[in-house]
Amino acid sequence: MTPETGAGSDARETARLEAFSDGVLSIAITLLVLELRVPRVATQADLGHRLLELWPSYAAYFTSFATIGVIWLNHHLLFRLIARVDATLLALNGLVLLTASVLPFPTALLAGYLGQPGEKLAAIVYSATFLAITIAFNLLWLYASSPSRRKPLLRHGPDHPAVREVHRRYRLGPASSLVALCVAPFSPPAMLAITFGLVVFFALPHPVHESAS
Amino acid sequence: MTPETGAGSDARETARLEAFSDGVLSIAITLLVLELRVPRVATQADLGHRLLELWPSYAAYFTSFATIGVIWLNHHLLFRLIARVDATLLALNGLVLLTASVLPFPTALLAGYLGQPGEKLAAIVYSATFLAITIAFNLLWLYASSPSRRKPLLRHGPDHPAVREVHRRYRLGPASSLVALCVAPFSPPAMLAITFGLVVFFALPHPVHESAS
Amino acid sequence: MTPETGAGSDARETARLEAFSDGVLSIAITLLVLELRVPRVATQADLGHRLLELWPSYAAYFTSFATIGVIWLNHHLLFRLIARVDATLLALNGLVLLTASVLPFPTALLAGYLGQPGEKLAAIVYSATFLAITIAFNLLWLYASSPSRRKPLLRHGPDHPAVREVHRRYRLGPASSLVALCVAPFSPPAMLAITFGLVVFFALPHPVHESAS
Amino acid sequence: MTPETGAGSDARETARLEAFSDGVLSIAITLLVLELRVPRVATQADLGHRLLELWPSYAAYFTSFATIGVIWLNHHLLFRLIARVDATLLALNGLVLLTASVLPFPTALLAGYLGQPGEKLAAIVYSATFLAITIAFNLLWLYASSPSRRKPLLRHGPDHPAVREVHRRYRLGPASSLVALCVAPFSPPAMLAITFGLVVFFALPHPVHESAS
Repeated sequence: MTPETGAGSDARETARLEAFSDGVLSIAITLLVLELRVPRVATQADLGHRLLELWPSYAAYFTSFATIGVIWLNHHLLFRLIARVDATLLALNGLVLLTASVLPFPTALLAGYLGQPGEKLAAIVYSATFLAITIAFNLLWLYASSPSRRKPLLRHGPDHPAVREVHRRYRLGPASSLVALCVAPFSPPAMLAITFGLVVFFALPHPVHESAS
Repeated sequence: MTPETGAGSDARETARLEAFSDGVLSIAITLLVLELRVPRVATQADLGHRLLELWPSYAAYFTSFATIGVIWLNHHLLFRLIARVDATLLALNGLVLLTASVLPFPTALLAGYLGQPGEKLAAIVYSATFLAITIAFNLLWLYASSPSRRKPLLRHGPDHPAVREVHRRYRLGPASSLVALCVAPFSPPAMLAITFGLVVFFALPHPVHESAS
Repeated sequence: MTPETGAGSDARETARLEAFSDGVLSIAITLLVLELRVPRVATQADLGHRLLELWPSYAAYFTSFATIGVIWLNHHLLFRLIARVDATLLALNGLVLLTASVLPFPTALLAGYLGQPGEKLAAIVYSATFLAITIAFNLLWLYASSPSRRKPLLRHGPDHPAVREVHRRYRLGPASSLVALCVAPFSPPAMLAITFGLVVFFALPHPVHESAS
Repeated sequence: MTPETGAGSDARETARLEAFSDGVLSIAITLLVLELRVPRVATQADLGHRLLELWPSYAAYFTSFATIGVIWLNHHLLFRLIARVDATLLALNGLVLLTASVLPFPTALLAGYLGQPGEKLAAIVYSATFLAITIAFNLLWLYASSPSRRKPLLRHGPDHPAVREVHRRYRLGPASSLVALCVAPFSPPAMLAITFGLVVFFALPHPVHESAS
């Protein structure tokens, strides 16, 4: 029943999944530049004014880029620990990619409405997307690291420092995102502060990665 | 006449074809996020209303994402069985990519017309695209698994369980899609039920893949 | 002066160039689906009419897809013969990618004007792009296969059947494209017939590839 | 603490970072073709006129393509010298990708305003982006080549000719870009001359690369 067997086949499997995921994330990270549109005006002073007015688009581009960059980084760290994939893991990875690649939309929404009447609703949509991303990552990780599996998917046992560090970190994701979501209807800036703290936290050097340094 | 020979060259050939296919599919899966446009309105209540009105776009994004994800999965399973490629296989693979990458268009069409006068026509276009995708996959598979070939393209013989399982499954694709197409002019919801059943069916774990678990 | 030496380094070089080229071509082949826009109308009959009116867009999508597919195929065949890359080859490869990735624009232009007053101009622009593509491929190939090089870039000598077949084929590209360009101002359909003949010719099985069958 | 150890793991790390970077750059290099829109007019003479009017878009496409191509080339040369990556290098690489992938926007801005009232402001934005790109590349290189590291990230010592050549070249980048930025408010054409000189300079064959010839 096995077309190819052994570690070589497993490695090729995970490599192709990583390559496809990289493709999706590299497109999601780049697409928002299409939202930066050259304003059509006549005079020099007008152009300066119009370019400054576009600042929410620049902020959205930068924020999406940084966030999807950190998502890529964590996806990449995770797959350094994952030795094998199965059908459920593929589906959960798809969920991570779905939530991550939709991010440019709520980011543009929030950037467009910050400081305007609809900002609270935009903040709720934005933080709900973050909650969905952190839940998707946790489902992927909890499934991959489940100890009740005949042949484990992870490269290491549950007591390996890198595995325990991921457990420690990932617990923080949905909790902080939920707090951010609850805060969003009252104070969009407070929601943003919590969310950006989360992005910075997940950008911090990780023992899985540092081990390579 | 042979620039490189042996299994190493064949493996590199199929790897590059898989990488190109992954590129096309990862772009097709991500592009629809561009259709999600931030509505321009003034008040909080309006924004909520406008965002809710966009639900067909969200549904189209999710459906396209899931469908192209399942297409990727099946393309990937197929190429675990294919050991070598030739010119005809390249062309048939191109046909699969063509039908798959056009999918965002009929999906957006159906999402935009569901519950409106044009919904039956939109349902016909949508299910016809599915029929084209399943036919393209079957042509690829029938060519690849053709027994009357001096040097086979598949890694395994026709009696291998994984090969027989693909035969069993693929037969269902065009048949169900054809039923869906015939049902479309009478009941778009019934067409959608059959089509989504098909997507779920092809997302089920497959022995080719499970063998790696 | 050599960071890495030997065939391993050369192979990694060409592999990365191929991967980048595949990325550019897979985006160019997929982007045109964005031009297929869902028409906004009210009645069923109108929708059918509007969808039929879009046929030049469908034709442009299909034609671009097929042409860039054939370009990918030939790029791929070429790099099976190329063992090493240098700075000039990188630049010439960039020229191939530039002319190929711009193709969706003249294709959409021709599709939009066929049968209308501007069709001759559109036909000239379209066939000029084809001429540019064939010239770029020939520059790449003539540079790569130049015999007056101390350490050849090709995997084989000038008398290898695969090398001679590429020489034979490539000569036809600019010649036929030039004929098509000259015919364009008089008869766009005749130009299209020559051009599509060229695409089909370059899609034919090639000894470089067949050697792997 | 180390999931995988040794040179194999390091090589896989840098390979995945290069693949992701290639993905981002290949999208950035291709996206601008979407800005080339088929003009909607009636007569042959009008179409010719309208196509000629689009020349700034063509120039922007070509310039972006060439510049991002040269950025890809230099990124690629750099990673031939980099043997290992750490968290900071990943972040600095992200900065390079961010500044490079935003380039289509200032390029379209400058192309749209050259010869019009807003051209000086557009020239400032354009040259400031170039300055940001050269600074990002220098930060990446200075961090990677920093001698005060227990286990170096570079493949070679600081006296290796290829390493010294990169030092020599990279110094020129921010300096010339700064001059271009200072010149921009007075003479956009002079700014363009300096900037294009810089692009050509960084496209010149490099000993890292030539060593492979």
